[in-house]
Amino acid sequence: MRSLGPGAPSTEYFPFYAMNLEVGSTNAFATVGKEAPASTTTIYAGKHDSSSGLSTYDLAIALQYGQGTGSAQLVKFMSDHVNICGPQHPPYRNWKCILSVGTTSAFEIVPKMLAKPGDYLLVEQHTYTTVFETSLPLGIKFAQVRIDKDGLTPNDLDDILTNWDETVRGSKKPSLLYTVPTGQNPCEITQPLPRRQEIYRVAQKHNLFIVEDDPYYFIQPWLYKTVNQATEHPTSVDDYVKALVPSYLSIDVDGRVLRMDPFSKIIAPGARMGRVTASEQVIERMVRAHEVSVQNPSGFSQIAVFKLLHDSWGHLGFVQWLAHLRGEYIKRRDVLFEACELFLPREICGWVPSTAGFFHNKAGLISSLQIEKEIHSAAIDAGTLVVPGSWFLPDEGRSGMDEVFFRITYAAASTDDIREAIKRFGAALRRVFYLQSQGKLGQTDSGHQLQKLSGKISPRSAIRSVSN
Amino acid sequence: MRSLGPGAPSTEYFPFYAMNLEVGSTNAFATVGKEAPASTTTIYAGKHDSSSGLSTYDLAIALQYGQGTGSAQLVKFMSDHVNICGPQHPPYRNWKCILSVGTTSAFEIVPKMLAKPGDYLLVEQHTYTTVFETSLPLGIKFAQVRIDKDGLTPNDLDDILTNWDETVRGSKKPSLLYTVPTGQNPCEITQPLPRRQEIYRVAQKHNLFIVEDDPYYFIQPWLYKTVNQATEHPTSVDDYVKALVPSYLSIDVDGRVLRMDPFSKIIAPGARMGRVTASEQVIERMVRAHEVSVQNPSGFSQIAVFKLLHDSWGHLGFVQWLAHLRGEYIKRRDVLFEACELFLPREICGWVPSTAGFFHNKAGLISSLQIEKEIHSAAIDAGTLVVPGSWFLPDEGRSGMDEVFFRITYAAASTDDIREAIKRFGAALRRVFYLQSQGKLGQTDSGHQLQKLSGKISPRSAIRSVSN
Repeated sequence: MRSLGPGAPSTEYFPFYAMNLEVGSTNAFATVGKEAPASTTTIYAGKHDSSSGLSTYDLAIALQYGQGTGSAQLVKFMSDHVNICGPQHPPYRNWKCILSVGTTSAFEIVPKMLAKPGDYLLVEQHTYTTVFETSLPLGIKFAQVRIDKDGLTPNDLDDILTNWDETVRGSKKPSLLYTVPTGQNPCEITQPLPRRQEIYRVAQKHNLFIVEDDPYYFIQPWLYKTVNQATEHPTSVDDYVKALVPSYLSIDVDGRVLRMDPFSKIIAPGARMGRVTASEQVIERMVRAHEVSVQNPSGFSQIAVFKLLHDSWGHLGFVQWLAHLRGEYIKRRDVLFEACELFLPREICGWVPSTAGFFHNKAGLISSLQIEKEIHSAAIDAGTLVVPGSWFLPDEGRSGMDEVFFRITYAAASTDDIREAIKRFGAALRRVFYLQSQGKLGQTDSGHQLQKLSGKISPRSAIRSVSN
Repeated sequence: MRSLGPGAPSTEYFPFYAMNLEVGSTNAFATVGKEAPASTTTIYAGKHDSSSGLSTYDLAIALQYGQGTGSAQLVKFMSDHVNICGPQHPPYRNWKCILSVGTTSAFEIVPKMLAKPGDYLLVEQHTYTTVFETSLPLGIKFAQVRIDKDGLTPNDLDDILTNWDETVRGSKKPSLLYTVPTGQNPCEITQPLPRRQEIYRVAQKHNLFIVEDDPYYFIQPWLYKTVNQATEHPTSVDDYVKALVPSYLSIDVDGRVLRMDPFSKIIAPGARMGRVTASEQVIERMVRAHEVSVQNPSGFSQIAVFKLLHDSWGHLGFVQWLAHLRGEYIKRRDVLFEACELFLPREICGWVPSTAGFFHNKAGLISSLQIEKEIHSAAIDAGTLVVPGSWFLPDEGRSGMDEVFFRITYAAASTDDIREAIKRFGAALRRVFYLQSQGKLGQTDSGHQLQKLSGKISPRSAIRSVSN
């Protein structure tokens, strides 16, 4: 068949003929946290490697119009990865992977596929802000589910759904639950397997569809107290994945889970790419949605990641990279916690475990939101940026809140900066509480005009630390 | 300020350290249509070129989370490009460029910004299918404006709007016009400047916002009868752009135009990137829409295109590349037209100019849609793929149509394939018309069961050729 039909240009008019990438080597990157590794590997992609037999994937394919699934070659590698990683893949046969154009894009597409304007989305009490930002413009409302030290509470989820009152809520009973089951953002809670099983049973009872968003799944620093050689350089994929808590996807006997594995924390945010895994029926809908919006991830991203994972690292090398990242995050976490021990006023706040301690405003004259703003501003004045817990609430705390905490991340700052920032944060905390005890909060540098206190404040703050 | 706030990972955890790309050289690519040029240039991007002073843009920036505008460095180059290309930039001062994540994505975002479900979008009678595909799921309806040899007709546009009946149409008077003013898809009509000015005046009268989609603007093969050295290797940007018809954007005194310059036809579709230019107010809305959906183009795409255009080619080199593409498309067009002259039955169909000739079904027993299907199937049976004109109608011709044509593209097939495909298409056309004249259409290989003809068919077909 000779085609004078589709409008794809000839690949002879793509001005890129070859790409060489210097990437980490599996035998070098494990040797620890410097800005550049001791040695790198060069990987090559030519324009016509596929027709010359050099590779199954080349620049001509990557830079042409693609499929709504992402390139078949990279999707195949990703499906194999999910298959090989025991605690990852579904117990049913007809599941599929596709590549999203980043998780924010997937967040926008999934509610369009699975909900209508006015519908409620069930979320953890505090959750990832981007979920609000993408869903609110679609007319989605939020029903918050309480969390405890093991994350989402099945009883509260069941209560909310059992007692759902359409008249009061102004919309039908929700059918969609969004959860970050591993290292939840911002509370860094990981749901243990029994908790996931309980939540799944409630989902079955009320016919919920679960959106499992798991950016930190493969790099869980909380699995280990300290870095050791075994965790840092696994010798098999099984060796590495056996320690991971099984995903919702892996217990999904009904096909009611869509799982997102973003690449931002394990490859690079700028690749604008992630993996989505679900039943073929759900994936087919998402592919159709891609076709009328984002189409597919950039071919430059796809070929770079394919060449890295498929041609250079392979499945074991990929897992060794993930282990390396985990080791790095364990070290960073330890720096943060040591700094907290050294510099934070234990009499006012707590930081481990994250469920311990909140500000409780017993007086009722200064709302918790005001206390939070006061500390946030004082910390900025002292030169430390942290994220207030209220930012992770659908209404940013405007309807009231009974806890104050800050999300503090050890993901990016240098270890020296982490220490100095915590030292200054501790000083800011002390200053706010001193001023409050003196009835002088209205006169702080931050310019907030607060009412004078007449009650008693029980001062304990949770510092929640997360890898994002 | 020390940040323990935003969740961006440290760039030390991006496993890409450097990228080398082999790209076309401005002194080599002009020497004509081979699969690879005689020589290439290697361009380099390191991880920390920005802090080492080597470049303003590097892999660490490109692979980190970005802005909804696209990277400042590439946006700057693109704004300069628009500024330098006289017939391109708006007559007002506060215009902005941003980078889309491909035109399909921009098609989905723009109606969400500027229209509501149920609103009508004004389009050319036949138009680019992706506009329907992205807008229909958003609840948009289509009002088709007649075209003549100069494209969109101002009178019909004015009539439609002046006589708009909300009750009949079921929705308010449209406020949004989508047009492909240059080499329109599928009709390959280029609106001359006076026509654009007339349309703009109608837009002012009825307060229309114009979405100008211009993928072929810089590679207009129809500007020249034959390739010559002057068109193929311009020595200044001005020299090249002075021949181009001024864009709607350039006559937009009111800020009522949003212009899309896709990169798919001039760089590569797989980059999933394009330029959008409009008033800062409209661009600000689009950036906000990006932030809650696609975020920004892939960093790999952005740095590859930045290094190519900014570091290697520069503004003149970019225009020389566009001139090279134009020369290539002129040659391809000539191959197609020569094949049409040789192999198509002039007594049944026409192909130049594109306004000449359509099938007219005077008998009314076989609808035009059936004739079109018959020819399409016969062509496939003969081994040639062409695209039926009805595919470019919002309802794919189900509500009737009074013209039959096929879009035939010379964009990608080899010159041998173009000739052979046209030869076979000509044979298929002859066969259908022979069978029709014998009353045997119901027995063709394609399996269509058509009613026997009892009337007369005036058989002229338009073969429309486009570079996409």
